[in-house]
Amino acid sequence: MAGRDPYYLLTPGPLTTSAETKQAMLHDWGSRDQEIIKATRRIGDALLAIAGAQSAHVCIPLQGSGTFAVEAALGTLIPGEGPRNEKALVLVNGAYGRRMAKILDVMGRPCVTMETAEDTPPSAAEVDGILSGDGKISHVICVHCETTSGILNPLGEIAGVVADHKRGLIIDAMSSFGALPLNAAEVQFDAVVASSNKCLEGVPGLGFVIARRSVMEAAAGNAHSLSLDLYEQWRMMEANGQWRFTPPTHVIKAFEAALDQFDNEGGRAERHRRYAENRDILVGGMREMGFETFLPDSRQAPIIVTFLMPADPKFDFTDFHDGLKARGFVIYPGKLTGRQTFRMGCIGHLAAAEMNAAVEAVRDTMAAMGVKSGAA
Amino acid sequence: MAGRDPYYLLTPGPLTTSAETKQAMLHDWGSRDQEIIKATRRIGDALLAIAGAQSAHVCIPLQGSGTFAVEAALGTLIPGEGPRNEKALVLVNGAYGRRMAKILDVMGRPCVTMETAEDTPPSAAEVDGILSGDGKISHVICVHCETTSGILNPLGEIAGVVADHKRGLIIDAMSSFGALPLNAAEVQFDAVVASSNKCLEGVPGLGFVIARRSVMEAAAGNAHSLSLDLYEQWRMMEANGQWRFTPPTHVIKAFEAALDQFDNEGGRAERHRRYAENRDILVGGMREMGFETFLPDSRQAPIIVTFLMPADPKFDFTDFHDGLKARGFVIYPGKLTGRQTFRMGCIGHLAAAEMNAAVEAVRDTMAAMGVKSGAA
Repeated sequence: MAGRDPYYLLTPGPLTTSAETKQAMLHDWGSRDQEIIKATRRIGDALLAIAGAQSAHVCIPLQGSGTFAVEAALGTLIPGEGPRNEKALVLVNGAYGRRMAKILDVMGRPCVTMETAEDTPPSAAEVDGILSGDGKISHVICVHCETTSGILNPLGEIAGVVADHKRGLIIDAMSSFGALPLNAAEVQFDAVVASSNKCLEGVPGLGFVIARRSVMEAAAGNAHSLSLDLYEQWRMMEANGQWRFTPPTHVIKAFEAALDQFDNEGGRAERHRRYAENRDILVGGMREMGFETFLPDSRQAPIIVTFLMPADPKFDFTDFHDGLKARGFVIYPGKLTGRQTFRMGCIGHLAAAEMNAAVEAVRDTMAAMGVKSGAA
Repeated sequence: MAGRDPYYLLTPGPLTTSAETKQAMLHDWGSRDQEIIKATRRIGDALLAIAGAQSAHVCIPLQGSGTFAVEAALGTLIPGEGPRNEKALVLVNGAYGRRMAKILDVMGRPCVTMETAEDTPPSAAEVDGILSGDGKISHVICVHCETTSGILNPLGEIAGVVADHKRGLIIDAMSSFGALPLNAAEVQFDAVVASSNKCLEGVPGLGFVIARRSVMEAAAGNAHSLSLDLYEQWRMMEANGQWRFTPPTHVIKAFEAALDQFDNEGGRAERHRRYAENRDILVGGMREMGFETFLPDSRQAPIIVTFLMPADPKFDFTDFHDGLKARGFVIYPGKLTGRQTFRMGCIGHLAAAEMNAAVEAVRDTMAAMGVKSGAA
């Protein structure tokens, strides 16, 4: 019945999850009954613990994709245009930073961006300069690992600068949370946003925000939306442990199971180690075939790797994708603005054996396509 | 491993689903791969067919709870305050009508309400009068079955009046879609909103909007939100069959399976028949024990039934709920503003055998509590 999955997902998520995680969805639960209230509380406690957050922070889950949670955080924590004429500064080096600027724009919340190239992390010194020169910037918004390229942004340095200037920091940690280090005791933030279906290896259907309690307390009435009002969601959960609107009960139970496995596996450090090993096997194997990574190793997070499209005219991405899929691995197209690339993920319920098999599948597919080298 | 569920859900949803529906979630799928594109298209086609809608309508699914889809429909289809000073008229006889007025208020979209008591359907004649007297009302918004009480509102009559006045009609058919008759050839609407986890017996995690194509085409740029922009969601799905943001892949596959079963069972008419039988068994059995329904039979939809709280001081709702849960049935508290009630649903993957067992469980629980009659 359960059977083997048709393929492994080497994508930015949703990802391959364990059989146990999926089997947690084989029951129906009352959305307002104790089982879901308890699961929601266990999930919130587990997420706070992963972030090294204590009583000064709260965790608020939200229905929908990760972007819904990002929008809820921005809409609830960044007030609309007020007498102080405040604005947000979004650090952009890929699609997800750009999307946050777009969200603010749609909501009519003033924002400015600081853009760097897709292979270039934002410089903390440059952020320092901008904040020194503009006292109207109330919040800085930053992506931890920008999945567009797979680049790791220097969150610690940026957080230090933002804290020095006493501004708020909102972090999109969608693709990094649970694997890359992010500890509230070391990195001062107003909010961190992530989702169930990335490094925590749950199924897709909910996001969450870990926010400073004092920031949440001041956020009443800010939201532009009823459904995406993170303040009201938080108040109801504090009051009775319930979601304001129908929660995705099966997704919640799967997430609870995934977080239990996360703990049993050894927590964040072990997950980071496994993903880094996955990346090293993948990048090493691909380089042996001549493939080139878009990023230098020093900027490459162990989340998703962007490879340059091979120069050989016999290489066709659709054939490559389909050939790999037939061999049991799904990969993703690239997302860069200027270059032809594709992406392969290192996260999900996968380890060395699967990554070695993925490299072999690439080798087979290249041979079947008659492509001799992955060189760009 | 799948095992029997711990209880049946006699609630307004999420509901008891079939084993097949849940087993469809035992695989991981690539969110941008053909399997999800195809499942999304099959779901959309099935939903349009259920609504008797042809090429003049489109179906747009959205991540999140049903309320997210309602907000997306209102935010995308009802323009903000413009030069024409248009406003919406919301018909309110319970919490879900009231919630739609609240959504419009949060979005800053002008609206007026026409309120009737919780046991009283809105009168089409009264709507006619209001529309005749106020040419600034561009849209009428109506709940089909108001789950607050379980009342069936006279959708056909209201739709006729709204069409006569050439205004738009937006219908919250959350708890009725797929069971109660609603045919685009007979009822003229701009949009109908519902979700996966009510009468269609999927799991919770997505809603959908069936909208007139010409209405969608005119809706660019209206939305107050990026995530809840139904126009952009539609454009992307039309372009490449994909969801704009990570879709709840497992929920989609479960919904596809549930819709296959819906067809195999005999479609909407058969589902209506089964739910009506469920209601009749429930109401008949409860009345035998002296329980009284809040609504007269003529206004009672076969979705959820509100019962008055028994007068006997030995009756305690928490004990009653817990006693029924221990016997395998979860029920819901009441939601009326002025009266002490509780609710029992008739929908989900349940038929006569389960409803008879539910009545027996009530009888046992009453006996264990020492309550002699359900009379209010």
